[in-house]
Amino acid sequence: MQFPSKLIEEAVNEISRLPGIGKKTALRLALFLLKEDERTTLSIADALVKLRTLTQYCSECHNISDEAICTTCSSPRRDRSVICLVQDTRDVLAIENTGQYQGLYHVLGGLISPMEGIGPAELTIEPLVQRIQRQSSEVKEIILALSPTIEGDTTAFYITKKLKDFSLKVSTIARGIPIGGELEYADEVTLGRSILTRTHYSHDNK
Amino acid sequence: MQFPSKLIEEAVNEISRLPGIGKKTALRLALFLLKEDERTTLSIADALVKLRTLTQYCSECHNISDEAICTTCSSPRRDRSVICLVQDTRDVLAIENTGQYQGLYHVLGGLISPMEGIGPAELTIEPLVQRIQRQSSEVKEIILALSPTIEGDTTAFYITKKLKDFSLKVSTIARGIPIGGELEYADEVTLGRSILTRTHYSHDNK
Repeated sequence: MQFPSKLIEEAVNEISRLPGIGKKTALRLALFLLKEDERTTLSIADALVKLRTLTQYCSECHNISDEAICTTCSSPRRDRSVICLVQDTRDVLAIENTGQYQGLYHVLGGLISPMEGIGPAELTIEPLVQRIQRQSSEVKEIILALSPTIEGDTTAFYITKKLKDFSLKVSTIARGIPIGGELEYADEVTLGRSILTRTHYSHDNK
Repeated sequence: MQFPSKLIEEAVNEISRLPGIGKKTALRLALFLLKEDERTTLSIADALVKLRTLTQYCSECHNISDEAICTTCSSPRRDRSVICLVQDTRDVLAIENTGQYQGLYHVLGGLISPMEGIGPAELTIEPLVQRIQRQSSEVKEIILALSPTIEGDTTAFYITKKLKDFSLKVSTIARGIPIGGELEYADEVTLGRSILTRTHYSHDNK
């Protein structure tokens, strides 16, 4: 594509760095911004910069947070005996939307994926182990709520091994989720049900 | 959706102001930016602000331009006797990509749409009339390359009336069956129009 100006070419190139946005969509967005009031662009840009530079992560569950400890971790109403392991913030939102879960979370920040060069060290697995050690009197159960993909299964397997010396139940959400499906796209009923009917890993079944 | 932080909520709200981007997609984009290097976000934001605050419009054709007069309008290789009227920059790009047109352009900046509150005064129709007056010795033909919608037809009708006192040809791009399109899947209006405005094979191959 031959752009009429360097500025729009640069903007299209930058916007199309976002996942799922190609050059044509980027151009459409750029032309939209040019038509809108200048404040629209400025406030979008400002929100992006603030998001990236000011966002904190909860030191307990590693979810995105405004404070050092997030509202879920500091809430007295949450069940502190259960920790639900998820890949990222979107999964926390999806599970919260079901209204079926009252425990705490732990956000891994990704899944183990040798293809993408993501090993256990890139995730918050070690912090999870330390967290359980710190709160060993409180934590009774870990729920693995990972996508049923190769990466999810690998990560679940790795974490299960890491946790085998702790005296806690480790469960996984029920495979009501279609294999190959992404957790964030699951409907609320299926996702809620899958938490209620989670399958317990029994020790004699190893 | 209940967001874990005000910053991400604000970012999602801002991103979803873009056309075709809902809250879920906005959240996906926001989380992508949080995972990427900080420089990615900063350079995207910077490109958006530069685009919106520094972009100029060619004083002749009103296309986006780096200079006061765009490269097309100032090019000695373009045919100055034809002006092609288009809705926006994307249409200029689309026509340029065909490699079939050597004339100049005039970017209207939209189409007349009472539904959206866009009247002739919002478009560059008056500047077009002045431009033709200024260059009346040069300009021989105006090609209307507008979308075949109610808005496009309204705009074409309005412009045709505005230009009726000038001694110039006014034409419209051909409506018909797309190349590679199956005849049986064409809608009745298009097919009917393509028969009425059929192209004659001339013996002298003009």
